[in-house]
Amino acid sequence: MSEARIIDGKAFAADLRGKIAEGVADVRARHALVPGLAVVLVGEDPASQVYVRNKGEQTREAGMHSVTHRLPADTTQDALLRLVDQLNHDPSIHGILVQLPLPAHIDSAAVLAAIDPAKDVDGFHVVNAGRLAVGLPALVPCTPLGCLMLLKDTVGSLRGLHAVVVGRSNIVGKPMAQLLLQADCTVTVAHSRTVDLAETCRRADILVAAVGRPEMVRGDWIKEGAVVIDVGINRVPARDPAAAAAGKTRLVGDVAFEEAKAFAGAITPVPGGVGPMTIACLLLNTLTAACRSRGLELPPMVTTARGTPV
Amino acid sequence: MSEARIIDGKAFAADLRGKIAEGVADVRARHALVPGLAVVLVGEDPASQVYVRNKGEQTREAGMHSVTHRLPADTTQDALLRLVDQLNHDPSIHGILVQLPLPAHIDSAAVLAAIDPAKDVDGFHVVNAGRLAVGLPALVPCTPLGCLMLLKDTVGSLRGLHAVVVGRSNIVGKPMAQLLLQADCTVTVAHSRTVDLAETCRRADILVAAVGRPEMVRGDWIKEGAVVIDVGINRVPARDPAAAAAGKTRLVGDVAFEEAKAFAGAITPVPGGVGPMTIACLLLNTLTAACRSRGLELPPMVTTARGTPV
Ligand SMILES: NC(=O)c1ccc[n+]([C@@H]2O[C@H](COP(=O)([O-])OP(=O)(O)OC[C@H]3O[C@@H](n4cnc5c(N)ncnc54)[C@H](OP(=O)(O)O)[C@@H]3O)[C@@H](O)[C@H]2O)c1
Ligand SMILES: NC(=O)c1ccc[n+]([C@@H]2O[C@H](COP(=O)([O-])OP(=O)(O)OC[C@H]3O[C@@H](n4cnc5c(N)ncnc54)[C@H](OP(=O)(O)O)[C@@H]3O)[C@@H](O)[C@H]2O)c1
Repeated sequence: MSEARIIDGKAFAADLRGKIAEGVADVRARHALVPGLAVVLVGEDPASQVYVRNKGEQTREAGMHSVTHRLPADTTQDALLRLVDQLNHDPSIHGILVQLPLPAHIDSAAVLAAIDPAKDVDGFHVVNAGRLAVGLPALVPCTPLGCLMLLKDTVGSLRGLHAVVVGRSNIVGKPMAQLLLQADCTVTVAHSRTVDLAETCRRADILVAAVGRPEMVRGDWIKEGAVVIDVGINRVPARDPAAAAAGKTRLVGDVAFEEAKAFAGAITPVPGGVGPMTIACLLLNTLTAACRSRGLELPPMVTTARGTPV
Repeated sequence: MSEARIIDGKAFAADLRGKIAEGVADVRARHALVPGLAVVLVGEDPASQVYVRNKGEQTREAGMHSVTHRLPADTTQDALLRLVDQLNHDPSIHGILVQLPLPAHIDSAAVLAAIDPAKDVDGFHVVNAGRLAVGLPALVPCTPLGCLMLLKDTVGSLRGLHAVVVGRSNIVGKPMAQLLLQADCTVTVAHSRTVDLAETCRRADILVAAVGRPEMVRGDWIKEGAVVIDVGINRVPARDPAAAAAGKTRLVGDVAFEEAKAFAGAITPVPGGVGPMTIACLLLNTLTAACRSRGLELPPMVTTARGTPV
């Protein structure tokens, strides 16, 4: 029993962002196309402000056109819908991301449904969920897309492997299952109603945990040599009791990492595993949307990047 | 080991059609609403002609408004799209079904995409696939919907059961998996790339076979007491060699029925299992679409019918 390889999502994401920047330069040079991403933030949620700032920075670093709309917390739904409509019709914008959560007086579903599916770089629109489900080209939610790339890079062909996805949310679990099925895995979806979850996980060649329960997946739930993708991001008290008492925290995944390392063939850490892939895949989706808007293929340095699913 | 209960889909479907007819009478009496189904047939395919005739008859028997458009085989795609558009705007029509296969010169995907999703009673439109995937009210493909009703009637709550779906087509396997997941099963999807299919099937409390391979699923692939839903409809030579030599055929499912009976707790026969549910669910979808077009609930005699998933 040898220790698991640690999948370095941070390095992978940096690499991918580099390829995307090359791809952006390529479509700009060859087609005078400058991919543009608009991020819309309503209100002052501190975590959202950090995410939105990061997205803006990474978009610009990739050489894309980046616009951030910061609206006050009392913005009406109508005003937000008008902005979305304006962005839908703005030819310099290829991707629109409305940062969630929205203030309680706004119907998030109505706002997400108003985004042009061709610009829906979060992949949350019903049309993109449908296109993914039936196997048409879609914009795919960023987190599962990132997981798939890590898996392809780690395993190569996924064909015939048994993948178990724990979690069935619309933004992680369900699209993850669709992508693994498309990659010819036998796919099992488990969730809070699953009976004997440990036994179900033990059958996985590929185990994706997207649950939101700190370290729920134990080492002995993992088949010897399986590849483990830990999507969970959970904040728990710091290890040191004094630090914890002082309110210090640390991040852990849905998998008990130290235990799991002894069984898995490869595993993503938290932080530094799946997390950094999400924004990188947002950039990838924006470039994809921009290329599709002109009927272009993705540039070759992107389609040949490590783990690229296209 | 006792022999499996045979699930009588023919009787179940007749029962359901009766409830739907009552529901149609109810919405007509209380809301002056007459559900209408338009079936469009292009060309002379003999099997399609039989299906279309059956659909028309059963629609009328349920008290619905029924229109059949029979178009010549050389109908242009434009003409067909104009008809679809006209039906989309016809207030007396709540369901539109374009019979497949279409002649080769017509792009089926383009025609199906042109149907108003609210009238897409086959449930093949990307928007309906997406709504099903994310858990919004959808029009669901008729065959998996019928399978779910048989299962709910046979098993009661499906929560926590392990369902294995063999087959991943857009019209049976994938929507079946979504419905079973919504019903809180742990769901495994298997297909032609699955390694050790027999072992995968043996783990199923509920086994749905939608493969199109005569009697592929053997008796010893079935866990003692499992419920087996056989979607397959395969035409094979008659048992009697002389009859077979004379070109006589018979229908078998994807499951080796006689063997499976000894293991399963309950099983659908072929014919007379899933088959008759498909048109009954088409009528159900038409009534659902009609009610939704007016913002009405389905009438109570339908929502309380055996196995109703709504
Ligand atoms: N960039 C990133 O890395 C990224 C992005 C998104 C999310 N995340 C993280 O990923 C995790 C999941 O996110 P999400 O949005 O998918 O969460 P979610 O919407 O809360 O879904 C959680 C899923 O886990 C299932 N579940 C809950 N408790 C369970 C249990 N005890 N056993 C088995 N299944 C259980 C739930 O089952 P039911 O459906 O039966 O309730 C549900 O399907 C969170 O930690 C989140 O922070 C990370
Ligand atoms: N009213 C009804 O009762 C009704 C309605 C529709 C269909 N059907 C019947 O149901 C069956 C399936 O229909 P469909 O439209 O879903 O068929 P389909 O589109 O041909 O799909 C068949 C599925 O079975 C899988 N498969 C093929 N060979 C396999 C093997 N050896 N082992 C494991 N999986 C295998 C395929 O896997 P890959 O994806 O890897 O190729 C595919 O996903 C047919 O017999 C059809 O006549 C009945």
